[in-house]
This record gives sequence, C-alpha cells and structure tokens, in this order.
Amino acid sequence: MRVAVLGCGVVGTQVVRLLTTQADDLAARVGAPLQLVGVAVRDTSVERDPVVDPALLTADAEGLVTRADVVVEVMGGIEPARGLILRAIEHGAAVVTANKALLAQDGPTLYAAADAAGVDLYFEAAVAGAIPIVRPVRESLVGDRIRRVLGIVNGTTNYVLDKMATEGLDLEQAVKEAQALGYAEADPTADVEGYDAAAKAAILASLAFHTRVSLDDVDREGITALTADDVAWAARTGHVLKLLAIAERGEAEDGTPGVQVRVHPALVPASHPLAGVRGAFNAVFVEAEAAGELMFYGRGAGGAPTASAVLGDVVSVARHRVLGGRGPVESSYADLPVLPAEAARTRYQMRLDVVDRPGVLAQVAAVLAEHGVSIEAVRQTPVGDDALENALAAGEIARLVITTHAATERALRGTVESIEGLDVVRRVISVLRVEGA
Amino acid sequence: MRVAVLGCGVVGTQVVRLLTTQADDLAARVGAPLQLVGVAVRDTSVERDPVVDPALLTADAEGLVTRADVVVEVMGGIEPARGLILRAIEHGAAVVTANKALLAQDGPTLYAAADAAGVDLYFEAAVAGAIPIVRPVRESLVGDRIRRVLGIVNGTTNYVLDKMATEGLDLEQAVKEAQALGYAEADPTADVEGYDAAAKAAILASLAFHTRVSLDDVDREGITALTADDVAWAARTGHVLKLLAIAERGEAEDGTPGVQVRVHPALVPASHPLAGVRGAFNAVFVEAEAAGELMFYGRGAGGAPTASAVLGDVVSVARHRVLGGRGPVESSYADLPVLPAEAARTRYQMRLDVVDRPGVLAQVAAVLAEHGVSIEAVRQTPVGDDALENALAAGEIARLVITTHAATERALRGTVESIEGLDVVRRVISVLRVEGA
Repeated sequence: MRVAVLGCGVVGTQVVRLLTTQADDLAARVGAPLQLVGVAVRDTSVERDPVVDPALLTADAEGLVTRADVVVEVMGGIEPARGLILRAIEHGAAVVTANKALLAQDGPTLYAAADAAGVDLYFEAAVAGAIPIVRPVRESLVGDRIRRVLGIVNGTTNYVLDKMATEGLDLEQAVKEAQALGYAEADPTADVEGYDAAAKAAILASLAFHTRVSLDDVDREGITALTADDVAWAARTGHVLKLLAIAERGEAEDGTPGVQVRVHPALVPASHPLAGVRGAFNAVFVEAEAAGELMFYGRGAGGAPTASAVLGDVVSVARHRVLGGRGPVESSYADLPVLPAEAARTRYQMRLDVVDRPGVLAQVAAVLAEHGVSIEAVRQTPVGDDALENALAAGEIARLVITTHAATERALRGTVESIEGLDVVRRVISVLRVEGA
Repeated sequence: MRVAVLGCGVVGTQVVRLLTTQADDLAARVGAPLQLVGVAVRDTSVERDPVVDPALLTADAEGLVTRADVVVEVMGGIEPARGLILRAIEHGAAVVTANKALLAQDGPTLYAAADAAGVDLYFEAAVAGAIPIVRPVRESLVGDRIRRVLGIVNGTTNYVLDKMATEGLDLEQAVKEAQALGYAEADPTADVEGYDAAAKAAILASLAFHTRVSLDDVDREGITALTADDVAWAARTGHVLKLLAIAERGEAEDGTPGVQVRVHPALVPASHPLAGVRGAFNAVFVEAEAAGELMFYGRGAGGAPTASAVLGDVVSVARHRVLGGRGPVESSYADLPVLPAEAARTRYQMRLDVVDRPGVLAQVAAVLAEHGVSIEAVRQTPVGDDALENALAAGEIARLVITTHAATERALRGTVESIEGLDVVRRVISVLRVEGA
C-alpha cells in the first residue's frame, strides 16, 4: 500500500512520524504494510525533522500523486491542493485531507470526483483536529436525526476568551499571549474574525443535515468586538462567552424547513458541558432526536493530534483497498434550503443604560412586546457590582440586563433599533446571543 | 435489506420506532430500503407500544434469524442471545448487538464466528449507550496508540454519586431516589457493585489495546462502601468521587508490558473534564499518544439513545451488504498480558486519625518511605472543617489526609497494613485512588 504525503509542515511531519514509528501496528491494522513513497514539498533543500528521510522528499507533487494508492494532503490552501487531490483521484488513489478551507469552499467538486472514480475521500482532520467528529456524524449517528450542532471549533479564540474570563485580560492582551504561545498566528484574522470556525461550521452542517453548505452560506461574526466588560458580565449572569459554530434545523418565515448555519460569540450557561471547555481545547456538542445530547472533546489543532486523525483515515481507506468496500460518500439527499441569518432563532441578553426614573422599564418592555419578543428575565441591580451600585445610587442611570425567550434575529434587530430610538435609553451596551440553554 | 429484531423491551421498541419513522432517511443512507421482517419476543400476546406492528411479532426467534440480512439483538442476557447470534451468523446475516454482558464474557467466540462467515458484527450500543465510542476507538484512533481509557460508563452509579455530592444524601437514600426515577433496578447489584461497568471496561480494553480482555480479567470494586463523609471529603480536597472503568498500559514487576483493567471509585480532580459529568450521563476519556486527551460524552442508557447507536450500526452493516466491503474485525494482534491488580499504579488519598502528639507524622511518613511510597501532600487541618478543628482543639486526635505520588497497588496495600499496625494510629478511615490528575 503506497502512501504519498503532500506537505511537510507541522502536520505532515507528524504524519510521517506516525507512519514510520507505528509501521508494524499500522500493518497489523490494515492487513498490509503502508509504504511511504514520497513527501511533496516546495523546497527540498530546507532542513527538516530527522524523522523525514530526505530521500523521500520531492518537489514533483504532480508526479508523486500518480505513484500512490493513498494520498494524504496536509499542505492546506486552495491551490495547488485542489488540483493535486483531483489528479490523485483521477489516478485512482484514495485521498485523506485535513483541508477545511478547500472542503468548505469546493467540497462538492471533490466529493463528486471521488464518487465518479469510486475512491474514498476522508477528512476527519479537517474539523476539530484530533476529535473524532466527522466519522461519528457520518456513520455513528446516521440512523438518528440531528437537530443541532454547537461547536467550539477554533482553539485560538477559545484560548483568548478563556484568558479574558480567568485573568481579566482585554482582547488585545489575550491575543498577544496566544501569539506568544504559538496558539495564534502573527495575523490572527482567520481565527478572531471567525473564518476558520465558519469553514468547519459549513462542513459540519453538510454532514449533519445531508445538505450542501458552503462557506458563503455561513453567517459569521468574530470575537473582535468583545470587551473585558462583556466577559465579566457573562460570568456575573452565570454564563461563559464562547465563539460557537452553530448548525441547526430551522424554518423560514413561511414555515419551509431548512438549515441555519452561523458563527458568533454566545453566552453559554455555566452548567452546560461546553462551558467547561478550557484553553485551546475544542468540543462539538450534538443534539440528536434519539441519542439526545452528545459531546466530543479534545485537541482541535497541533501536529500530533491532527496527524492522529489523518492516520485513522489512512487506515480506513487502506483497509478498503485491501479488503474491498468503500467509505461513506457525500450525502446531500435532504437538500434543505440554507436559511438567512434573519431566520435564526435564539435567546438574547441585552445590556442597556437607561434614565433612572419610574416607567422606563415599562417603555422598554413595550418595545419588546411590539416586536413580538418575549422577556424571560430583567435584572436591574445585579448583586456584587459596586460600580453599578454607585452609579445607581447617584440616581442618574439604571443598567438593565434583559434576557429574552427565543426570538428570530430579524425580530431582535428591529427591537434593538426601536430601543435605541427611545428618549429614555442612554445606550445599548451589548446584545449577545444565549445558546445551549 | 431484511432486518430482524430480537427483543422488544425498551430498546427494541425504540429500534422498531426508528426503523419505521426514519424509513425514508435510512433508505437514502443505506442505498436500499430496510424492511423490518420480524420482532422476536417471548410472549406475542403481551400488549405493546402501537409502533410495533403485531403482525411482525413472533415467538420463533430461531426461525426469524434465518430470514434476515441484518439481525439486531437487543434481548440481553447470555442465552438464548448467544445461540441466536451464532445461528444468525451461520446463516450469513450481519449482526448488531447491544449485549455487553455477552461480549465481555464470550466475545471472542462471536468475533471468530463472524470472521469465519465473513459477516459484520457491530456493537456500538454495548458500551456507553448512545455515545459513539466503539467506532472512534476501532476506526478513528486506529492510527494512534492509546495509553489509557477512563470511563464513567454506568449512569446509575454516576447519578447516585452526583446526588450524594450535590444534596448530601447517603448511599442508601441516593439509590432509592435513583430507583424512584427508573435509573436503578429494584436489585441494583449489577450497577452499584460495578459488574456492569466491568463488562464495559473489558470491551473497551479489548478494543483499545488489541488484546483479549474478558470480564474475569477486570478488578472490580463497587460504590457500596462509600459514605457521605467520603463524598464530602472529596469536595473538601478539590475532587469529585466517580466510579471509573479504567484500562491502561502498564508493566509487570519484571518490566513486561501489559494492560491493567479495573473498576473502582476514584477521586477525580474538580478541574478534570470527567468531574463535570453529572446525573446519569456517561463519558469516556481517552489518552492517546498523538491525539492527546479526548472525551466522549452523552447518554449511556435508555431506549432511544441506545436505539440511536444500534441504528448507526445497522446502517453501516447494511451499506456493506449493498456496496460491498466489511467493517473492522476483532483485532487482538497485540496480545498483551493482563496485569494483576497489584501492578496497577495510581495516586492515593488516605485519611487517618492519629494520636495528636509530636513525632506522629514522622512515624507515618517513615512507614510510607519504607514501602517506597512517596508523599505528594499532607494536610493536617483542612480549612473550614469546624468539627475537625474542635476535635483537634480538644487535643486528642489529629486527622491526616495524605496524598501519595503514583505507587503500585501492592506497595499501597503493604503501606496501609503497616500504618494500621502503628500504636499512634487510631484508624485508617479511607483509602481512595486518585485518577485523572
């Protein structure tokens, strides 16, 4: 069984390491030895980890993919990864990829090519690194009906938010710390603006709902607008702020069923299993009709964890070569419409400063009622907030924290606009979604 | 694709429900319709859930299994389940079973029969109900090397311990509550004595370490000796008491590598992901060399959750029938020896009352040193324990809480025996293992 690896960065090196050090185990599990026939790199002259035999390095990726039974793509980016994967498939190789950006942008082209050629295309490592989530969703839960997926699928932002919560850092400080530890890139845009999470959300939504969802279908909002104050208030109201990738069944205004996919910061109740996901860890929480609540937790990035997921896929596709059979193919039979952001239904927490006089709460409550948004709770003097109590004591303003029942994004936006127009409202400080309650 | 279901209890009924209500989805996923051809029951005259078509009921299980492509065994118990599964395999049917007791006792016979007949034998539902754990361990982590598995795999005992911790109940009260809610049987022995968890530990160990491990190989200790005091002291020292199923690599005294498999109550640090597993939920924590720490969380029992896991397996084996190929077969190539309980290495927390005079701690510490057990921490006056402070103030006794570094069970037993023999020691109150630190 000839294996080619495309890319020899952090992940590629660890894939080569596992293929080498675990060779006997892998042969026993596959039923035939896995022979590493080449590692494609841009520059063969760069010094590399000694685990990578220099004789295996080649700059001719195009040639390499035609000499392998299994091609592992861990170079990332759209091109040349896309072209090489298609070429490998054309030549009858099974493909294992960790490339979330490519799958979220152009997955169906790859799936169709693999299907037409009758070869496997596996991608466990593309979502949440080492955590087995693609296989459980594609295979274990295939007899169930998934309602919703809530994922912490970006370790960088989880680390940043965790630092803000536990050490009171502001966003900039926390990002700098993440960069110092190698959790964040020099340019952290892809992480903090939610692009990375959005790609994973698209892949998870496609799998969970048997519907094609691409990156462009995902409503995306990063964590850059969050303040230390937002994080502190989250704790004060019994929540933790997390950047969530959310994919759920929903319906359009006319009642048509569809799926809604989004990435945004959300308040998660402290008692929810996702609230305990600390540091750079990832977790995917799945709600299914029969199975109920499931959570998958682990390392979402890093060379060795990602390589573990890649190798699991390599063994599967290699076993199919040896024993026959094929893995799951793309399943998009449900073909549900992707609903616009306005159709998303969730709970909200609004913080606003209002003029402190009788009747103000009634005015605000009336606006919510007009927009059909129902109030779950209002707090006016949260316990233990001295600064606020001083301000209240001064008699000038009152701070309201309003939690709503589930409402559509559209209704909420209209509500906030109307509230901002009220004379008695000084400012709307923040509007955050509450998920997992 | 003809499907037969053996057993129509809580799980069987939900399997029938999913096969019926999800028929179109299942057909799309399998590539062919799944036709329920019969449900074997002991007594066809009993009134059943209307989702079960009475025309499908039969008391002739032996005949039914010869008329199916896929046989789902959810009757439980050793016989007639074992005979029926073997008969189904003989007739070329693929088998999906949720029967942990049977697999832990006689799995290799079934695996060998399935292998010889070239049919699939799947059993996701046998461990931790709805949680996909068998498939991730058999397939996703197959390119990695698992070091240790720590599982909360019995919902009844987790519920009981959670109630003791959160409401201060004693064991008997908590078991009664679990019985009232249907989480515990009228005779709770299998759960509270750890037999159920031990069966799951054997299955997990077999999968994780490619080695045959049966129920008899599992060292087992239930929760019946735990007191409300143990639970309260756990919290006081920053831990949560959980009944854990543990399977890990280890070595014998002569250095031979092997596996050690056990079930016992353990102190889990409050910051560990397993500590947050509340109520009747299950979770399996896996430590693998490349993947690092993973956790799988969800409902470990109940009709619908278990049926979800069964259906996932049904789809997999049915797809193999339609598209060719086969699932993983038993993998026992590593064939590691199962190490005795004495070889288990872990940390311990000991609570003991000693005569309160100078030099006592030195005597106790000397005993630990003699046995080669190294001390991590000693506390003599835990903060906030008024009763103890009063006793200490009275000058009669002192309570020591000693936490050790990792030591073998053998060394620890010797230590405790020697400590009990010291004049200055009033009593050893408890010795609990500390896991997951």
